[in-house]
Amino acid sequence: MIIKQYLRDKKKIVEDGMEQYMLSGSDLLKNHLEAMRYSLFAGGKRIRPILCIAVAEALGYSDDSVLPVAMSLECIHTYSLIHDDLPAMDNDDLRRGKPTNHIKFGEAGAILAGDGLLTFGFDLLSHPSLTKNLPAETQVKLIQVLARSAGSLGMVGGQAIDIESEGQDISIETLRTLHSCKTGALIKASVQMGAILGKANSKQYQAFSQYGTHIGLAFQIVDDLLNVTASTEQLGKKAGSDAELDKATYPAFFGVDGTRKKATQAVSDALACLEQFDDRCDPLRELAQYIYSRNK
Amino acid sequence: MIIKQYLRDKKKIVEDGMEQYMLSGSDLLKNHLEAMRYSLFAGGKRIRPILCIAVAEALGYSDDSVLPVAMSLECIHTYSLIHDDLPAMDNDDLRRGKPTNHIKFGEAGAILAGDGLLTFGFDLLSHPSLTKNLPAETQVKLIQVLARSAGSLGMVGGQAIDIESEGQDISIETLRTLHSCKTGALIKASVQMGAILGKANSKQYQAFSQYGTHIGLAFQIVDDLLNVTASTEQLGKKAGSDAELDKATYPAFFGVDGTRKKATQAVSDALACLEQFDDRCDPLRELAQYIYSRNK
Repeated sequence: MIIKQYLRDKKKIVEDGMEQYMLSGSDLLKNHLEAMRYSLFAGGKRIRPILCIAVAEALGYSDDSVLPVAMSLECIHTYSLIHDDLPAMDNDDLRRGKPTNHIKFGEAGAILAGDGLLTFGFDLLSHPSLTKNLPAETQVKLIQVLARSAGSLGMVGGQAIDIESEGQDISIETLRTLHSCKTGALIKASVQMGAILGKANSKQYQAFSQYGTHIGLAFQIVDDLLNVTASTEQLGKKAGSDAELDKATYPAFFGVDGTRKKATQAVSDALACLEQFDDRCDPLRELAQYIYSRNK
Repeated sequence: MIIKQYLRDKKKIVEDGMEQYMLSGSDLLKNHLEAMRYSLFAGGKRIRPILCIAVAEALGYSDDSVLPVAMSLECIHTYSLIHDDLPAMDNDDLRRGKPTNHIKFGEAGAILAGDGLLTFGFDLLSHPSLTKNLPAETQVKLIQVLARSAGSLGMVGGQAIDIESEGQDISIETLRTLHSCKTGALIKASVQMGAILGKANSKQYQAFSQYGTHIGLAFQIVDDLLNVTASTEQLGKKAGSDAELDKATYPAFFGVDGTRKKATQAVSDALACLEQFDDRCDPLRELAQYIYSRNK
């Protein structure tokens, strides 16, 4: 399988689905909805929705209702980028090669675009159109996984620890918690939500969850590495910003080579979790390796 | 019935429930969770959770699961106050007689406290502990009503219109939309969520929804009036701030006396919606009148 082609194909499916399920509203909401769209359709890799779809398909689930579920993950991810970029947070002007949301729509507009996207994630998962295809029990489970992983004990909490840790001498344990909350939780949730859609039994659910934990770690380690080694042009966002904000990162603890080894280990650990599954998990195997080798 | 005593009793029940269901987490999250608690337990009137409980009880529903459902409304309301008070939005230093969240915890801390509370609202409604007492179909309906009313077509959208309208010459129709989204939607949702818990039939649901629309309008009109007529000390937040921000309000359109008449009319309309119900709706009748006569 050529993973890059797989990612391109799935990205198109995800983005077509996002067009289909996106909110529309009256003229009075024009600017607000445009601010949401601006960041949602800014051309991300769509890793989280693709993970969700890949796991669901590995378990034989291929109903269209996977699309709004996958989209809910991208809404949450996008809102987190908008809020993280705000002047009061990481104060970034550039994201995916474009001006950040608050540069384009002002701070108030960006805060509200984020709030709108966060709320819309839960709107999608509870929408009556989804109820036609999914048992309500499944919807509630999906919502619980998303709310728990995106909230204060997950992504929001991770960002809070991150902001507080700037310029502080933190331990590797704190950095691990920070990473597993800030980035890991939503990536793990993407995998878990695919597993819930695919009616995974408890052994399968556990294996996928662990796979999610390991690729979430790999993803964040590579993110830290790229912030040191790649250019702003490659990243589409400001390179070297972690050092500038005096953020604790894997390279600061382990050096660039040591960090590469940690990433390789995380990918191996992820692959080991998939041993019990058949070749329908091949995209997930290649995705784990892609996460290591990506350059932005 | 003495409505003030009723409100005091219910407020205590709501706040005890909030203590019981509030998140706890590791030491690393101490400041973040404290920032959430700071605003959540800052002593609001708890009108939204009380409305939810009052409607559920009017329909004979008295299970404890009403508490996390009611709390979800207060989480969403509180997050909206935190974000609305931010320097980029209304830039308020005072709320409920105390420094606003960003004054106390910094802007980043306040943005994240808001994000955490917003997400926690949906966590509460999808939590497995609730699943024991409520059918999943009911949970999904509650989540849909909350997400729709709190999101871009409701409260968030209303705030977006509000921010854009500052200093603009807007029509009364725009002001009506702004109000019905920004304040009305969540008050209506509070009533609707109580009706869902109480298994309202469709005629009852419609009557309660209309009651919710009318008291939401009354609430916002009185809010506009108080901003003109009450003191900062009475309000616990800055008086006269609407005029200072050049916001469109009911008094600006209709004068103080004309606005009072509009509020009285909204209360009468709300009461008319309850005609078909028995005396278990008396608290809702008195609540409608209380909303008109409140002084903060």
